[in-house]
Amino acid sequence: MQFQLTNEFLEQVEQLIANKDGSALRELLHEFHFADIAEILEELNSDEATYLIKLLASDITSEALIELDEDIREKILDRLSPKEIAAELEEMDTDDAVDVMGELDEDVQKQVIGEIEDSEHVADIVELLKYDEDTAGALMAKELVRVKETWTVAGCVREMRRQAKNVTRVHSIYVINKEGKLTGRLSLKDLLTAGDKAHISDVFIPKVDYVTVHTENEEVARIMQKYDLEAIPVVDENGVLVGRITIDDIVDFIKEEAERDYQMAAGISEDVEADDSILKITRARLPWLILGLFGGLGSVYIMQGFEEALEKFPILFFFTPLIAAMAGNVGVQSSAIIVQGLANDNVKGSLFNRLVKEVGLALINGTALGILVILFGFVVSQDNLVSITIAISMLSVIIVAALIGTFVPIILDKRGIDPAIATGPFITTSNDIFGIFLFFYISKIILGF
Amino acid sequence: MQFQLTNEFLEQVEQLIANKDGSALRELLHEFHFADIAEILEELNSDEATYLIKLLASDITSEALIELDEDIREKILDRLSPKEIAAELEEMDTDDAVDVMGELDEDVQKQVIGEIEDSEHVADIVELLKYDEDTAGALMAKELVRVKETWTVAGCVREMRRQAKNVTRVHSIYVINKEGKLTGRLSLKDLLTAGDKAHISDVFIPKVDYVTVHTENEEVARIMQKYDLEAIPVVDENGVLVGRITIDDIVDFIKEEAERDYQMAAGISEDVEADDSILKITRARLPWLILGLFGGLGSVYIMQGFEEALEKFPILFFFTPLIAAMAGNVGVQSSAIIVQGLANDNVKGSLFNRLVKEVGLALINGTALGILVILFGFVVSQDNLVSITIAISMLSVIIVAALIGTFVPIILDKRGIDPAIATGPFITTSNDIFGIFLFFYISKIILGF
Repeated sequence: MQFQLTNEFLEQVEQLIANKDGSALRELLHEFHFADIAEILEELNSDEATYLIKLLASDITSEALIELDEDIREKILDRLSPKEIAAELEEMDTDDAVDVMGELDEDVQKQVIGEIEDSEHVADIVELLKYDEDTAGALMAKELVRVKETWTVAGCVREMRRQAKNVTRVHSIYVINKEGKLTGRLSLKDLLTAGDKAHISDVFIPKVDYVTVHTENEEVARIMQKYDLEAIPVVDENGVLVGRITIDDIVDFIKEEAERDYQMAAGISEDVEADDSILKITRARLPWLILGLFGGLGSVYIMQGFEEALEKFPILFFFTPLIAAMAGNVGVQSSAIIVQGLANDNVKGSLFNRLVKEVGLALINGTALGILVILFGFVVSQDNLVSITIAISMLSVIIVAALIGTFVPIILDKRGIDPAIATGPFITTSNDIFGIFLFFYISKIILGF
Repeated sequence: MQFQLTNEFLEQVEQLIANKDGSALRELLHEFHFADIAEILEELNSDEATYLIKLLASDITSEALIELDEDIREKILDRLSPKEIAAELEEMDTDDAVDVMGELDEDVQKQVIGEIEDSEHVADIVELLKYDEDTAGALMAKELVRVKETWTVAGCVREMRRQAKNVTRVHSIYVINKEGKLTGRLSLKDLLTAGDKAHISDVFIPKVDYVTVHTENEEVARIMQKYDLEAIPVVDENGVLVGRITIDDIVDFIKEEAERDYQMAAGISEDVEADDSILKITRARLPWLILGLFGGLGSVYIMQGFEEALEKFPILFFFTPLIAAMAGNVGVQSSAIIVQGLANDNVKGSLFNRLVKEVGLALINGTALGILVILFGFVVSQDNLVSITIAISMLSVIIVAALIGTFVPIILDKRGIDPAIATGPFITTSNDIFGIFLFFYISKIILGF
């Protein structure tokens, strides 16, 4: 039942576009879901995609445009006139229209606004444009169903029929008082089961979760997830109902956040995809590699300080990649657990307890690994004192790496910096340097070179 | 407006529990949202939490139990009798009841089933228990509103009132034919705007997305996201409507998947949290550290093969952590991009094109980093040939690391293995070994030791 985009189908579409056979294309794509149209658009070149956008009805193409990757949408919008863009925006919900608007140059924005005919829609878009990008104000849509406390159920249903025409999906009906302030909500279920003559004030639920226009997206996502909400009303500073946010926007937000954190942990600083240009990917990757390079050069410098070991204990230099790997791995593990815990708000208890726990963990892991190192030394007939030295200094490195991995994110978080930057290359590089230094320093004390 | 759990409040609750002051507790927690009750339960010890669960009304505690962390829920369930568990399950939607059921021992399951009074609920739970854990069958709930094609709108509203009592939230109304097969859906909006005497067959939408009981969760999530669905009906092999999946379950699934991938990339193989026991965290972390240790010992072995360089070019051994870091970082970056691309289904084009692109990327990054290494050598008055040797071999290591990082996930994916395991320690470790070997091998050719 699901649409599967095949190469044959794509070739057929491309052929029809090349022939400028509009009626055959309209016929072929008739009744296609906008998400499937979007999938096709992503595979076409910009000129072909623009042709298709101009050809098909704007109630479908407007939704498809929203689903597109930003890069692709930008190229298509470049090829449309302000009047054509306005026609697409007229069909969009206000929140989506504002997202697209935000991608246009300021002078194009003005021209497009001049071309939109529905003056209420324009006013809503202009209002939403003024909110900060990461707040509920910018995420919300103006489309919602609102009823007044004083109405009867029958009057309410009549009014809802009128309002519902502009709202794609009715999630919840919000109840307002005569000043427009949010006072509660009404479930469709309650409306179905109440008598026609009952007043809204008798059947509505006065307890309603809401956010303000200034609430940050992250907090909106947290609240909607915690309380399993599918939509949440947004009020202004005076408690007046001004919009609502739906769960599908939150799903996109959660996914984007997760992908961003994952990329940051892997040392990729911009939002890139496998199919982006080499230049864009290099810009996202190279800075982190340079950081790693400086870390490596730092290790070179440290080892030059312990050069005298080369003569008596050259074997130590064979173990530096192992020490660096252990320091890096332990650091990344510890930081990943803390970063996720901070994000989910479940890092509890005192810092001292956490310290004790991390040291305990590192002792267990470090001892187990140390025993393996000593066994390895035994098998390859390595000097016992050297094996023990390596095991002890590795244990120390693991403890320090775990502490750095745990407390750097906590400190960053306390200072209001996103702790996710502390996983990945940042922690690996600093742990490499600390680890190598500690390894040689402790070895020097024990072996006395 | 949001509840904020303070230490003072928690102490008050604990004090009341210690005093066994049930009526004061009921008074205090009256009208609390179940998600807030869950937050309180997570902070109490198991005996206190169990006391609270037994004290409060089961329509609240059943929902709170679902929100709890699995470990905590398990401890509470251990302290409840089968009859008490049954009382909680009676209040839950079937999908949640089945999740809880799955955590009980088989003999306890049987006792609990014997204690549930609502025979339809029992039958639904038993039916859901038989589906595979990762499929739509196990994720779906039996609660939904279904109407027949032949009904009138007025009759439909009557019947919906009856059915809606068992359904927490009405997302969509599904239309079935007389064999019970899914034939379409009805939006509440359409129902509101249609005349009372119209037949459902005149107003319903025959196009409806659905999945079967055997569809995998991942596919369900993909479809619901692509088509922005808030609920999707589930049919059996014969097309008979048997349940529905709602977006809140999918939100949880997406979050869990993202966290799992993130942890896997960090070298943590079980789902652990910062507050889990040391033993559990060690079990999740130690295997990856041991893998890293073997990698490090492999590097020791490789370097012993190039021991003769110690005399003439000891400086090479100072650069091994740098080489290992570069190989590791490049590999993790490449694999992260490919793994995300595979997950989002946007890795397109031929393998050859991808090969060319990755080599191109690695050449650009590797050349930039190589120039920095040569500059560094110049600043510290290092022998020029040695600097150039290090730069060239580092460039080769970066190219190979990028290729391994890109193609190992693709190959795993083609063989049906989750490519996410190829990011993190697995790729870092193998790239360390390859990198060190390549570095010394190329150095040996150029410098001739």
